[in-house]
Amino acid sequence: MPKSKKEKLLHLFNNVARIAQTFGMRLSFDDQDRATISLPYNPDLDHGLGCTHGGAIATLLDNAGWFTCALAHRGDGWIATSQLSLHLLLPAEKTDLRARAEIIKSGKRQDVAEMRCWDANDNLVAHASGTFIYLENLPFEKLKES
Amino acid sequence: MPKSKKEKLLHLFNNVARIAQTFGMRLSFDDQDRATISLPYNPDLDHGLGCTHGGAIATLLDNAGWFTCALAHRGDGWIATSQLSLHLLLPAEKTDLRARAEIIKSGKRQDVAEMRCWDANDNLVAHASGTFIYLENLPFEKLKES
Amino acid sequence: MPKSKKEKLLHLFNNVARIAQTFGMRLSFDDQDRATISLPYNPDLDHGLGCTHGGAIATLLDNAGWFTCALAHRGDGWIATSQLSLHLLLPAEKTDLRARAEIIKSGKRQDVAEMRCWDANDNLVAHASGTFIYLENLPFEKLKES
Amino acid sequence: MPKSKKEKLLHLFNNVARIAQTFGMRLSFDDQDRATISLPYNPDLDHGLGCTHGGAIATLLDNAGWFTCALAHRGDGWIATSQLSLHLLLPAEKTDLRARAEIIKSGKRQDVAEMRCWDANDNLVAHASGTFIYLENLPFEKLKES
Repeated sequence: MPKSKKEKLLHLFNNVARIAQTFGMRLSFDDQDRATISLPYNPDLDHGLGCTHGGAIATLLDNAGWFTCALAHRGDGWIATSQLSLHLLLPAEKTDLRARAEIIKSGKRQDVAEMRCWDANDNLVAHASGTFIYLENLPFEKLKES
Repeated sequence: MPKSKKEKLLHLFNNVARIAQTFGMRLSFDDQDRATISLPYNPDLDHGLGCTHGGAIATLLDNAGWFTCALAHRGDGWIATSQLSLHLLLPAEKTDLRARAEIIKSGKRQDVAEMRCWDANDNLVAHASGTFIYLENLPFEKLKES
Repeated sequence: MPKSKKEKLLHLFNNVARIAQTFGMRLSFDDQDRATISLPYNPDLDHGLGCTHGGAIATLLDNAGWFTCALAHRGDGWIATSQLSLHLLLPAEKTDLRARAEIIKSGKRQDVAEMRCWDANDNLVAHASGTFIYLENLPFEKLKES
Repeated sequence: MPKSKKEKLLHLFNNVARIAQTFGMRLSFDDQDRATISLPYNPDLDHGLGCTHGGAIATLLDNAGWFTCALAHRGDGWIATSQLSLHLLLPAEKTDLRARAEIIKSGKRQDVAEMRCWDANDNLVAHASGTFIYLENLPFEKLKES
């Protein structure tokens, strides 16, 4: 039985993406098809003062937006993050993190999404918006699947 | 002999920051005191389609800005990235990367800096601007130094 | 009877701010103290292709965030927009517009807010986030009041 | 003799755009084809505390980027500002302003540009970056020309 688009995306992140394994991130979709990226606390992502680096948080936010838009995208093609604006609101000190996205606007050429990241106590750690543009030259079929 | 601020910052990134070791990033300052972050190609930071993840590039950009502003900051205190806006311009496929920052405006409460990231062929891969606010409660002395 | 902070802010925008009169914008607060800026269609703000200029929309978004944060701010001082990130989602063609803000994070040094702008048919025309920093040197008393 | 693209763009802003007349802005191109927008001090654009409103500055920045990218764009079509990130660095108090753009990356689907705005004393008042996407449905010919 052929895989659904959602299954392909889950496979792409949870089994293929090297950075997901390096960080220890995991992708799931909720019942509204919003991507959630979970990151159990990983000390290997701490900056020099002992909190999770903002760049790691940016990675969660970007992934949440990308996979939400990739699933929503109707075409056979691919998407790319072209732009990301983020606010880091609180330090994330030795805490699990999770990020989730919502689509603000789905357009012909691109989607705009909003992403939020919370710590283990449901404090909002970061907020972002981003632009995810549609590409035509990278069909899913290019992906090697197990 | 006590360490200079520059030596402390180099130590903080190159010896203390766990994420720097995880990524394989290294900090240096040029003769204009601009921080440069170098990242030799690391396949463990690839996304599912085989290029360096945008979140890893965001990490380079953020670090370049943070360390440039931290060195320029006159006070004894600390700084924090409060905001980052970035454009991802080209895919970074199996290439070394380096990011560098320049201060746009140094203010009483915060600095604004601009950051650029290039690949091994000097193609501009990403561009960003960010806000780095001054904090008072985290003096350098809190840092454990070897 | 002395004016409340809310009355002072309404006066500041609706009676003092020259740009509010030039544009024809009006400020109100809803029952959750979120600032709303209304702009009846004004052809004098059209760009060369006959839609309301994105800079006018940015002005609505900025005002909505600024006045929401100014009202929420506990101190006697003042605030300033230090940073704004916006997505223009749809052209606004000969339509009334309204923008509204919500605070994402209220901090010691600054607030971060999210702003949205809709047209007369409730289409989301633009989305933004911004940073509003606290200043200490510009008390309300500096304002000439009628 | 048919007008060049540059002449058409100058005409579009300096003669057609209503907001340019409302603000008193004027477009020119320098010898590197970078758009410059000049705004002699206009008290009708002051906010309630007597400085030029940040939304007016955003308008200058947006225009500088838009016209620089519109001139550089090879196709017959049109462009639209899809995203803008700006830092307001200094208050602009009763001063002339000018904004200028430079293209950071010219792509197949969109351009990314950087914009700066200075006051009459050459102080950098604001810095921005933006995304200008290509459209196909709005050819120049739609423009009524005198």
